[in-house]
Amino acid sequence: MKLTILGCYSATPRTLNNTTSQVLEINNHMFLIDCGEGTQVQLRKHKIKFNRIKHIFISHLHGDHFFGLIGLISTFRLLTREADLHIYGPKGIKEVTIMQLKLADSWTNYNLIFHELTSDSSELVFEDEKVEVFTIPLNHRVYTNGFLFKEKEGDRKLNIGAVEDANINVAYYRKLTQGFDVVNEAGKTIKNESVTKAGLKPKSYAFCSDTMYKEDIVPIIKNVDVLYHESTFLEKHAHLGPKTKHSTAKEAATIAKLADVGTLLLGHYSTRYDNLNAFKDEAQEVFDHVELCEDGKTFDF
Amino acid sequence: MKLTILGCYSATPRTLNNTTSQVLEINNHMFLIDCGEGTQVQLRKHKIKFNRIKHIFISHLHGDHFFGLIGLISTFRLLTREADLHIYGPKGIKEVTIMQLKLADSWTNYNLIFHELTSDSSELVFEDEKVEVFTIPLNHRVYTNGFLFKEKEGDRKLNIGAVEDANINVAYYRKLTQGFDVVNEAGKTIKNESVTKAGLKPKSYAFCSDTMYKEDIVPIIKNVDVLYHESTFLEKHAHLGPKTKHSTAKEAATIAKLADVGTLLLGHYSTRYDNLNAFKDEAQEVFDHVELCEDGKTFDF
Repeated sequence: MKLTILGCYSATPRTLNNTTSQVLEINNHMFLIDCGEGTQVQLRKHKIKFNRIKHIFISHLHGDHFFGLIGLISTFRLLTREADLHIYGPKGIKEVTIMQLKLADSWTNYNLIFHELTSDSSELVFEDEKVEVFTIPLNHRVYTNGFLFKEKEGDRKLNIGAVEDANINVAYYRKLTQGFDVVNEAGKTIKNESVTKAGLKPKSYAFCSDTMYKEDIVPIIKNVDVLYHESTFLEKHAHLGPKTKHSTAKEAATIAKLADVGTLLLGHYSTRYDNLNAFKDEAQEVFDHVELCEDGKTFDF
Repeated sequence: MKLTILGCYSATPRTLNNTTSQVLEINNHMFLIDCGEGTQVQLRKHKIKFNRIKHIFISHLHGDHFFGLIGLISTFRLLTREADLHIYGPKGIKEVTIMQLKLADSWTNYNLIFHELTSDSSELVFEDEKVEVFTIPLNHRVYTNGFLFKEKEGDRKLNIGAVEDANINVAYYRKLTQGFDVVNEAGKTIKNESVTKAGLKPKSYAFCSDTMYKEDIVPIIKNVDVLYHESTFLEKHAHLGPKTKHSTAKEAATIAKLADVGTLLLGHYSTRYDNLNAFKDEAQEVFDHVELCEDGKTFDF
């Protein structure tokens, strides 16, 4: 699981600061999460192949998470993309995208498939054999979802020596990796656990931006390997949180602690702060494993 | 008159190439012309004060000329702008902008005034004491206008020695600079030209992008000091012109020659070309005074 931070600042893109966008590489998927203005240039800068992006998740329709989407969709067309593109985001995302394409007398030469979100409860929005994506309802000024990306339990690994000793026909090996007990050549039932071991531990990543402190999300993100939680402010500006519906670094760390996550990533910093280390210091008073997002940084988990 | 090229490439923004946007400084105005994605970052990069931009002219609603507008409007709000902002562009520009603001549950804390254009004839769209702006109807895949920026004839300059010799009351000096004849202290009519001289020659700039070769524009842009004319292609790709409704460098130069302009600026290059000098060489076979736009380049005229 690899995460590339294309942008992690709030409000407006600047010469050296990009607004929110991330690429999560998990189990051969390249999921694009949020798409602030300039995301397509950030993708080029980090040499991420446009064609590998098949699913885009938009948390909410504020510009710093969304204004780069129409440009990316248009560029995909100019690059003669053919693969389907799925877009998950709040209701309205389809209408405004199509209006912009129509005004340009343009359309896509690939299927553009919108999955408009309206629920206030966590729901499964994507699933294949290996990965599931759930929404994480957040509390922001407009309808907003975070997203939880979870690998499914992988196949069990055969203990080849034990399998051979147990005299099991090769035709049953697939059943074994799928976790079933099987009958051996002698007609005896062989318990799965006696000849297999657990596969790789499935990874999980929760993206939570933008939101004010919301403990309701803790059960949804419980025990994830990595939690990105916005931290727009430091505690000294905590009074701005409820008004703007953003969080502080300390609040992000409190959520991380309650959910017992592996690592907390901070981002969505207000541009009023020059020294990002203060965010890390503040969060680490509550929770140990904290990392700071920075534009262009990659994390391998 | 100073022109700053924020972006001059066609199609999509790239790591080193920005799409169309220019700032024209003329007679204390800062006119923003087109607004591709990332324009707000280019404005910051070139240290152009956001507050000085009061009028934005959008030629057409293709993304490479337009997708940066909503971000700029939003950023103006975040920067607590109060001054009115006038936007001139094709019909539809208001609806799509307002829809995006509504989806973000946002609005502007300044007046956002749309001037939607629908005419196929050149029309006056802005005028104050010193400057006029006219549309230049172009021929592109969607409804498109170029813009002609013209200083008005300035005040005449007093020839102070002559004025004093002519025994004219100071109260009439303003009338003289405005070009009127006046009566002197002795009751004699004094011809304006005998005591004044012409003011500074008014400057003019014509912006023509995007368009295929269109001779109809020649009377509108006749004798302008500076013509920006798109040159997406070189002649070797001239066959793409009618299909995509773009021009070649040679066609741009032919328009410049027919209109007898002072200087021709080329831009909107297709990213298929590595060497921009070929554009200049091709144009100069037809017209001498050719300059190449490049991102970040400024021209003082």
